[in-house]
Amino acid sequence: MERMISIGLIQMSCSDDSEENHDKAVDHIREAASQGANIVCTQELYKSRYFCQTADSTMFNLAEKVDEGSSTVRQLSELATELGIVVIAGLFEKRAPGLYHNTAVVLDADGSYLGKYRKMHIPEDPLFYEKFYFAPGDLGYGVFSTKYGDLGVLICWDQWYPEAARLLAMNGAEMIFVPTAIGHTSLDNEPEGTQYHDAWQTVQRGHAVANAYYVACVNRVGFEENPEGKGGIDFWGQSFIADPYGKVVKKASEHDEEVLVCSLDLSKMDDVRVGWSFPFRDRRIDSYGGLTKRYLD
Amino acid sequence: MERMISIGLIQMSCSDDSEENHDKAVDHIREAASQGANIVCTQELYKSRYFCQTADSTMFNLAEKVDEGSSTVRQLSELATELGIVVIAGLFEKRAPGLYHNTAVVLDADGSYLGKYRKMHIPEDPLFYEKFYFAPGDLGYGVFSTKYGDLGVLICWDQWYPEAARLLAMNGAEMIFVPTAIGHTSLDNEPEGTQYHDAWQTVQRGHAVANAYYVACVNRVGFEENPEGKGGIDFWGQSFIADPYGKVVKKASEHDEEVLVCSLDLSKMDDVRVGWSFPFRDRRIDSYGGLTKRYLD
Repeated sequence: MERMISIGLIQMSCSDDSEENHDKAVDHIREAASQGANIVCTQELYKSRYFCQTADSTMFNLAEKVDEGSSTVRQLSELATELGIVVIAGLFEKRAPGLYHNTAVVLDADGSYLGKYRKMHIPEDPLFYEKFYFAPGDLGYGVFSTKYGDLGVLICWDQWYPEAARLLAMNGAEMIFVPTAIGHTSLDNEPEGTQYHDAWQTVQRGHAVANAYYVACVNRVGFEENPEGKGGIDFWGQSFIADPYGKVVKKASEHDEEVLVCSLDLSKMDDVRVGWSFPFRDRRIDSYGGLTKRYLD
Repeated sequence: MERMISIGLIQMSCSDDSEENHDKAVDHIREAASQGANIVCTQELYKSRYFCQTADSTMFNLAEKVDEGSSTVRQLSELATELGIVVIAGLFEKRAPGLYHNTAVVLDADGSYLGKYRKMHIPEDPLFYEKFYFAPGDLGYGVFSTKYGDLGVLICWDQWYPEAARLLAMNGAEMIFVPTAIGHTSLDNEPEGTQYHDAWQTVQRGHAVANAYYVACVNRVGFEENPEGKGGIDFWGQSFIADPYGKVVKKASEHDEEVLVCSLDLSKMDDVRVGWSFPFRDRRIDSYGGLTKRYLD
C-alpha cells in the first residue's frame, strides 16, 4: 500500500548577511510548502557563507544557541506550525563558551521541537577547516518520529561513512536528510572532470540501497571566495533524492538556487526489505566487532 | 606513482557437467592470462549450475574438499604456476560430513595456496535456497597478500553489506573480488525494469567509494531452468570493475560469456585516501558499537 509524502530541499547561495540568508531560506521553505512539501530541509549552515574556508576565531560570533526556544529555533518552529510542515535546518551551534557544533534541528509539523543532530564526522582539508570550529557530535544517530515519517539526519562529511547510514537504519529511519556544503576548491587537482562529484553521489546512493531507505541530500550552490585570497569553493549544487533502489529520482541544477520538491512513496522500503529479506536478517553481527577499531593491523 | 596491474574476470554459463565447466573456466583463465591479466577470478560456484534453485540433498554430491592439495585446488595451483597469475575460484566446499560452505580459494602467482574465504552472509529467497546448503562462513574477512597486490574476497550476498566491505578495507585490501550468481527469477515482480540490477551495481560502487578501493564483481550468465518447473533464473552477467571513485571502468555483456580483462592503477587508492584524508582518520569508532547489534529498538 502506498504511503505518499512530499519533501522539499532548499538549495541556495549565501551572502555575508545572516538575516538575509535566513529570510531567503524562509521564503524558499514557504515556496516548498506551497508546492506541497510535507518535510523541508535546508542546506548545512544555511545562515552563513561557508566560513570554514579559513580558521578565523571571529567567525565564532556567527554561532548561536540551538535549543527549544532559542531564537532561530523559535522562528523556525513558528514557521513549521504556520505551514504544517516538518522543518530540518542546519545551524552553527554555540553549546558553551569555546564549545561549538555543526548541528541540525528538527521541528515537527505542529512546531514542536523534536531535537537536534550534531555532525559526528568532522573533516579537515584545505579550505575545509572544520576541526578548528566544530567539536565532534555526541548525540549519536538519533531518529526523529515526525508527523510524516521517521527520519534521520547526517551532515555533509558524515555522508561518506556507511557506518553512520547503517546506524540510522537500525534506529528505524525511513529516510535520511543530509544538509551539505561541498564543491570544488581552487586547490583541487582533478584531472578527470566530475569524478569527485560522482563519487559523492554514488556513495550516498549506495547507502540508500544498503539500507533500503530514501536519501535526500541538500547542497549549497554558488562560488564563495576565500577571504585569504586562496581562490575559493565552487559549490556543486545538485541536491538530489535517491530512492531505496539507489535511483536518483530528482536532482537540482549545478549553478542555480532551487526549491526541489519531490514525492516519495515510503512503502518502497517494504518492497525491498520484505521482498529481499534485506538488510537486517542476514547481518553477521558476530563478525562486525572490528568496526569499532581504527584499523585492523 | 602508477602501480599498474591487470585483472581478468571469467563470466560464463554452466552446464550439468562439472568437468566441462571446469575445463571451460580453465580455457577462459588461459585466455585472460594471454591478454595480460595478472589476477583472474571466476564466478561463484563455477563448476556447477546454480543448484540452490531447489533444496535437494543429492546436490551435496557436488561438494569437494577445498584445501591445499585437494583435487581442484591442486589443478588451479598448477595453472596459476604455469601462467604466473593469481587465481581466485569459487567452489562448493565439503568441510566435514553434513557441513558445507560456499567458498573461494586464492592461489598466488607461484601456485602457492594463500587460503580461502567462506561466504559470510547466506541468502534465503525463492529460488535462492542457500541456507539449506551452506553454513555461514567462519573465517572472517581475511586479506590475501599476493604478488600483484593485497586483495579481499566477498561472495554474492555479502556484496550488499557495507560492514563486510569496510572490514576488508580495514584489513588492508587494495581491491576486492566478488564471485557472484545473481539474476532475475521467474518469480520476480519488477515493474520498473532494471531497478534490481541497478541497485546491485550501485551498492558495490558505493563500497568502492566508501573504502577507496577497486571492486571487481564476477557474475554468471545465461538462463538456468528450475528443476521443479518453477521457471528459473536468468543470470544478469554484466560483471564489472569499479574504481576507487565508484566509476564503472569496464563491464561485460548481459547475455554472453566473456573474459573481461581490465588494467587497474592501484595508486588511485592513494589519490583518494591521501587527497581526501579518507576514510579512516575521521571514523567515529566510539559511536559504532551498535553495529554489532541486530537492530536498535
